[in-house]
Amino acid sequence: MENFVFQNGTKLIFGKDTEKLVGQESVVYGKKLLLHYGGGSIKLSGLYDTVLQSLTEQGIETFELGGVKPNPRVCLVREGIKLCKENNIGFILAVGGGSVIDSAKAIAAGVNYDGDVWDLFNGKGVVKDCLPIGTVLTIPAAGSETSNGTVITNEDGLYKRSTSHNTMRPKFSILNPILTFTLPAYQTACGITDMMAHILERYFTNEKNVELTDRLCEGALRTIINNAQVVIQDPTNSAARAEIMWSGTIAHNDILGTGRIGDWGSHDIEHEISGIYDIAHGAGLAIVFPAWMKYVYKHDINRFVQFANRVWDVEIDLNNLEKTALAGIRKTEKFLSSIGMPIRLKEAGIGDEHIEEMSKKGTEKGPLGNFAKLYETDVIKILNLAK
Amino acid sequence: MENFVFQNGTKLIFGKDTEKLVGQESVVYGKKLLLHYGGGSIKLSGLYDTVLQSLTEQGIETFELGGVKPNPRVCLVREGIKLCKENNIGFILAVGGGSVIDSAKAIAAGVNYDGDVWDLFNGKGVVKDCLPIGTVLTIPAAGSETSNGTVITNEDGLYKRSTSHNTMRPKFSILNPILTFTLPAYQTACGITDMMAHILERYFTNEKNVELTDRLCEGALRTIINNAQVVIQDPTNSAARAEIMWSGTIAHNDILGTGRIGDWGSHDIEHEISGIYDIAHGAGLAIVFPAWMKYVYKHDINRFVQFANRVWDVEIDLNNLEKTALAGIRKTEKFLSSIGMPIRLKEAGIGDEHIEEMSKKGTEKGPLGNFAKLYETDVIKILNLAK
Repeated sequence: MENFVFQNGTKLIFGKDTEKLVGQESVVYGKKLLLHYGGGSIKLSGLYDTVLQSLTEQGIETFELGGVKPNPRVCLVREGIKLCKENNIGFILAVGGGSVIDSAKAIAAGVNYDGDVWDLFNGKGVVKDCLPIGTVLTIPAAGSETSNGTVITNEDGLYKRSTSHNTMRPKFSILNPILTFTLPAYQTACGITDMMAHILERYFTNEKNVELTDRLCEGALRTIINNAQVVIQDPTNSAARAEIMWSGTIAHNDILGTGRIGDWGSHDIEHEISGIYDIAHGAGLAIVFPAWMKYVYKHDINRFVQFANRVWDVEIDLNNLEKTALAGIRKTEKFLSSIGMPIRLKEAGIGDEHIEEMSKKGTEKGPLGNFAKLYETDVIKILNLAK
Repeated sequence: MENFVFQNGTKLIFGKDTEKLVGQESVVYGKKLLLHYGGGSIKLSGLYDTVLQSLTEQGIETFELGGVKPNPRVCLVREGIKLCKENNIGFILAVGGGSVIDSAKAIAAGVNYDGDVWDLFNGKGVVKDCLPIGTVLTIPAAGSETSNGTVITNEDGLYKRSTSHNTMRPKFSILNPILTFTLPAYQTACGITDMMAHILERYFTNEKNVELTDRLCEGALRTIINNAQVVIQDPTNSAARAEIMWSGTIAHNDILGTGRIGDWGSHDIEHEISGIYDIAHGAGLAIVFPAWMKYVYKHDINRFVQFANRVWDVEIDLNNLEKTALAGIRKTEKFLSSIGMPIRLKEAGIGDEHIEEMSKKGTEKGPLGNFAKLYETDVIKILNLAK
């Protein structure tokens, strides 16, 4: 086990009707806030009204910035920063999924930074101190409701880059599984893939003696797998929606990664795909992860055997460990396909015309991944396996 | 799943040599602290010197109060409160195991309370605001390094009572598994029992649809079970010591209890035993838990079957679920015995002379437990099963 520091102080408020507490949780951070959200879904569902009423009851003055898109753009972040500075806003409330929360985090980081906010993503600048933010989560997926990171897309060059800082963690996040009843099956499945990927990125490590976190990862994966079909076929099943929502948070609150160095190569490759093609992050991960597994499993076959056995109940064939490992990868791929995810680039309507460009861009700062180091030629091969 | 709020902001610093960081972590909370510890073991091991050097390097003025005993006493807590008030001390550093940390928490709570500190344990007073505390943990067991609670014994009447408050959580805790190499086998086993009990208390719940936390509990239990014999037989095995130490923290940081109401009846019964007989808390739990299981398993046989199957690999006999459940209980009992714990009162030299008194005292504020409600007569029966 590696030395580590773990600290995650986000206050998580989980369950039915908890969105009504947003006013009393927000007012702790001041009487003026920026309400940040995406398209019209929160207005259609009534959540917008509930939130606004709760804020008004606490005498909070609310400025609004909607319009966050999936793969959130830096231009809207710049708009948010301007709005906060001009109005002396000290708190940002994100109501939505990971994209909205990531956009809010980028605004929070940019307000106290003198240069252009993109500097904080391309390595030119360093995040120092963020405005406090809070969230009302509507899509279990990204884990951004408790993580210290954000991913933003720059339209200029179609770069998708991340940055992180401890002060970026939300002060509170409100999670009501009932708010996810209206999520379409495809978006639900994208979220499920994303949270599974967060666990898998941590699971595939070269660190030895990480039994506790291995087992916690496996338990969370099994829970997600068991409840995935239920929420897709029976979207108002509150028990299963709750399991999925809480799993999405646990997947990315860092407990599962303590003492180990995760891989994150698949995430980085996916960022290149969704940076150019603007497909959902989860769908991109469903395409990349199985290909990545097929490319790297020989690097530590025992770990892939353990994964196959403990997560997918594949019996271990001691005379053919490779067969066992491959059965686990095949089950992963089949599962992702069964919940409606594309598992090949072509299923997402993506050809091979940008494979070399994506591989070059993705590795321009150095090789990707930690479990196995991936250079430009490796990424090309993985993307070709995903064709 | 129940609605819940989860927040645990303790900064956990884990790994080799981390005790050398204690000065820089402490100085954030001021230049004056109370160093609280137990007997001489930290002086013998050299930890005392390391801590003092680190504090001195940061220019921290250190007041000392040693002498904390297992089942920490309120009289020493009162002494600590006096010391803090007289010297205007604003931070307490606990170096030791759960008893030292619990004692430090009680001091931290008492300094800002006008009446006698015991009021905060017997329901007469309410904890409001605690001094910040930090810890260097030397015994993985109680989970006090990140929990919001403390248990103190009052010599006057031999009452052992608990209290909790969010501001009681340590600001930071330093966990170096190497510091646990010198723990004797018996104390190691007591710690293992205590952390298992923290998980079991949460595991046995009436709440339905708690799959994620069930699986996280099961993973943590399996990890503890797998590493227990290793640390007892090979006390300087750093990998196994690390698994046990991190498991002890995860067992009690509240993640495993989210969305469910735990039982805690066995803990309460044990407090009556160790309140009178002054045996180690873990040893008391090893005696009480199997007896409790035997007494209550019929209340939800499926849960005990799941426990037997997923934690102990007992094959499920669908035609005889009771047999499966009992096999899991038997395995629990055998395991505790195999690591050197007493599993009957008589093995700890305890007769049946105080069974009725303990049962009466334990239930004087109402029935114990949540999984099954235990009244005075139930506690008598459980203690008789444990004879």
